[in-house]
Amino acid sequence: MALNEALNEQKSVLVAALEQDDTGPLEELLPELRAADIAEILEGILEEDDDASTVFSLLNLLSIERRANVYGYLPAEAQEELAEAMSDETLLALFEEMGSDERADLFNLLDEDRREGLLRRMARQEREDIKRLASYEEGTAGAVMTSDYVAIPSGMTVSQALMRVRQTAPDAETVYQIYVLDEEGRLAGTMSLRQLMVARPGARVDDLMIKDVISVRVDDPQEEAARLVARYDLLAVPVIDAEERLVGIVTYDDAMDVAESEATEDIHKGMSIGQLEDGVSRVPLWSLYRKRVIWLVLLVFANLFSGAGIAYFEDIITAQVALVFFLPLLIGSGGNAGAQAATLMVRGMAIGDVGLKDWGKLLGRELLVAGSLGVTMAVAVAPIGILRGGEAVAMVVAMSMVTIVLFGSLLGMCLPFLLNRVGWDPATASAPLVTTLIDASGVLIYFSIATAILSGL
Amino acid sequence: MALNEALNEQKSVLVAALEQDDTGPLEELLPELRAADIAEILEGILEEDDDASTVFSLLNLLSIERRANVYGYLPAEAQEELAEAMSDETLLALFEEMGSDERADLFNLLDEDRREGLLRRMARQEREDIKRLASYEEGTAGAVMTSDYVAIPSGMTVSQALMRVRQTAPDAETVYQIYVLDEEGRLAGTMSLRQLMVARPGARVDDLMIKDVISVRVDDPQEEAARLVARYDLLAVPVIDAEERLVGIVTYDDAMDVAESEATEDIHKGMSIGQLEDGVSRVPLWSLYRKRVIWLVLLVFANLFSGAGIAYFEDIITAQVALVFFLPLLIGSGGNAGAQAATLMVRGMAIGDVGLKDWGKLLGRELLVAGSLGVTMAVAVAPIGILRGGEAVAMVVAMSMVTIVLFGSLLGMCLPFLLNRVGWDPATASAPLVTTLIDASGVLIYFSIATAILSGL
Repeated sequence: MALNEALNEQKSVLVAALEQDDTGPLEELLPELRAADIAEILEGILEEDDDASTVFSLLNLLSIERRANVYGYLPAEAQEELAEAMSDETLLALFEEMGSDERADLFNLLDEDRREGLLRRMARQEREDIKRLASYEEGTAGAVMTSDYVAIPSGMTVSQALMRVRQTAPDAETVYQIYVLDEEGRLAGTMSLRQLMVARPGARVDDLMIKDVISVRVDDPQEEAARLVARYDLLAVPVIDAEERLVGIVTYDDAMDVAESEATEDIHKGMSIGQLEDGVSRVPLWSLYRKRVIWLVLLVFANLFSGAGIAYFEDIITAQVALVFFLPLLIGSGGNAGAQAATLMVRGMAIGDVGLKDWGKLLGRELLVAGSLGVTMAVAVAPIGILRGGEAVAMVVAMSMVTIVLFGSLLGMCLPFLLNRVGWDPATASAPLVTTLIDASGVLIYFSIATAILSGL
Repeated sequence: MALNEALNEQKSVLVAALEQDDTGPLEELLPELRAADIAEILEGILEEDDDASTVFSLLNLLSIERRANVYGYLPAEAQEELAEAMSDETLLALFEEMGSDERADLFNLLDEDRREGLLRRMARQEREDIKRLASYEEGTAGAVMTSDYVAIPSGMTVSQALMRVRQTAPDAETVYQIYVLDEEGRLAGTMSLRQLMVARPGARVDDLMIKDVISVRVDDPQEEAARLVARYDLLAVPVIDAEERLVGIVTYDDAMDVAESEATEDIHKGMSIGQLEDGVSRVPLWSLYRKRVIWLVLLVFANLFSGAGIAYFEDIITAQVALVFFLPLLIGSGGNAGAQAATLMVRGMAIGDVGLKDWGKLLGRELLVAGSLGVTMAVAVAPIGILRGGEAVAMVVAMSMVTIVLFGSLLGMCLPFLLNRVGWDPATASAPLVTTLIDASGVLIYFSIATAILSGL
């Protein structure tokens, strides 16, 4: 994790003060720092120093509320490491102060024996909450939601509802959206605190609330929750179970985190890198190797088609070795243009800008753009063709350039649609896959054109 | 724009009802639809039908508040098209209801004559606001901020502040964060509505507020505002001018939009595609061509180094044509591994997970991972080398594979750091650039190893 300069300096001051037992700077600096920044400083210390004692000394200087807050900002690995070194008592005290979603995540990091032991020592309500939240599969809305929301029963007046908000304020993740439940706990409506505040105190919430509530199911993918929050500018999206009972909410800040990690996953996928369980500087090496090697080896075998293609054209190559000079250039250019086209489609689909039925229109557009790109690149390469291989070779190279760039771009553009059509993730159309396919077809195109033109000479 | 099935069906119902002048479905369906969905339906209609009259008929069925709301969700192109067909009166009425940030964006889309004419007909305060917001350069915090926030003068009590919130509620973008200003309009502190609601009504806001406020400057890049909102889980980040006066806020929903478009820009940059001014299905073809062609042509010239390398090794190639079979495979594999390494670093830097000083540690990690990848791929390719070219060629190919993958990965990993170091955007280390560089060096590595091993035979 990269600390910026200011944070790095604060870290040094804190560590030095701890080592010299000098409480002055600690008492001065710590209250000024925000939880996210303290977490980053602690992470920096943990990385440099295998011993967690400095981190514990710092954490112990914070109130338990603040400690819980800082804890939520630490990456999973650091949370796990610290939790292992903590007594059950400290961990239980921390649990009580943490947000329900972060608590469940931390709980899931502990080994099973410890989890059982901790559960036995919790109050019933807390235990049920933690067990329920910890049970949802990773990647679902249930796994990122919090159960700290403000819910009121149907039938309340505005002033009763406001009173309830005031009571819940210290614990709820957000008090700015209020959810109204019927007798069975089903989500009947929602109202914003803003609406509540301007409403007549005696009015009934049921008459004012929005009844057609946007919600997600607890087993929906977390991206769906994030997408709804972003699309409708929500503060939080309510999460319901199969019986339509409200079980949690996904707040906008968690939705932002989900969106960021989804974007990272998409970017990695674009290079055929599997989903990493942690940041690139922290993920175990073995895991990083595995997430990269699979496609690389698959593509080694796919690339053998290029080799087979070349072998097939051995005669023309032997006759005109100058053709080989342009091989990396032509297949490389086709690969670049194709990877661009694929990336534009994959990202367009990811953000909902491109759909399956836009295919025809986009194909027409790509035909025009890629054709122009191909001609431009052919013009750029032609003089060098003349210089290195004479006019005939230059003609072969220029014609191949147009054909390969056009073919590669259309292939790159269509592949995400095809994959989507057969139910695969369109992002599988990664740059490495697209360039490998274009390598093989580029070889065939190039040497076929060469054979047609040069063997007549 | 891709409409999902439900929206598409609703669109058909609406269009059919309009054509038959059948108000029943319109009155039933329209109130149920959300502004974001109506906007998407209108966009769908605009795309199929050049005539904007259907869209206007639909818009006219909505209240002016709702219309303003829908308008904010339309892409710039559609906003511009509709605004051009609107009378000044309608546009002024719309302006009055729109959020100040969206209004300024729309204003900026109009041509200058019209802008002047509209400004003359506005109330003074509105005119100043729109002129100010429209003046900030695109991409800055100023250009995405809104001036509809709740600010109170220093010295108020909690109950006075709550009263002010109630008065401002209908107009402010968010009422959940209150900003306290000193006599000069400088940001003195901030307080959340939640804190206000649980505080003693007679307490003074100045005693309770957070004084160390996170803020951005009006000319800071919009990404900085988005980054702060995400990092500190803010509802909004206040924007201050050079005199530290509060001039606006960037709310979390706008921050999410900024983060999404930044991610898109990064993904495109990863394939050497310049920043598009609109979605891929809407951006003008000429613009799409320009944003793609520059790097493609630059890389054509860069790829000539590969050609020159091959020309230098003409003798060994003529002697052993089988070597050419493996050329696309080797440079392709190196390119893939290198593009992976570069992408991991670029994304890590973008989300603040990797910093300049992590370079040494990450280099060590990459050395281990890329070494293992190279060996794995060499093992995969060796049997085919024996099959196609005999043992000596297989040895050349396997050794080249390890060397090229290792070299390519290290090059891909280091390039973003180097670019960052010299003040360039690390994302310039795109997959096409990295693979092109590896193409050229791969040729040299491969044929050098071949010359060393095979010419001794």
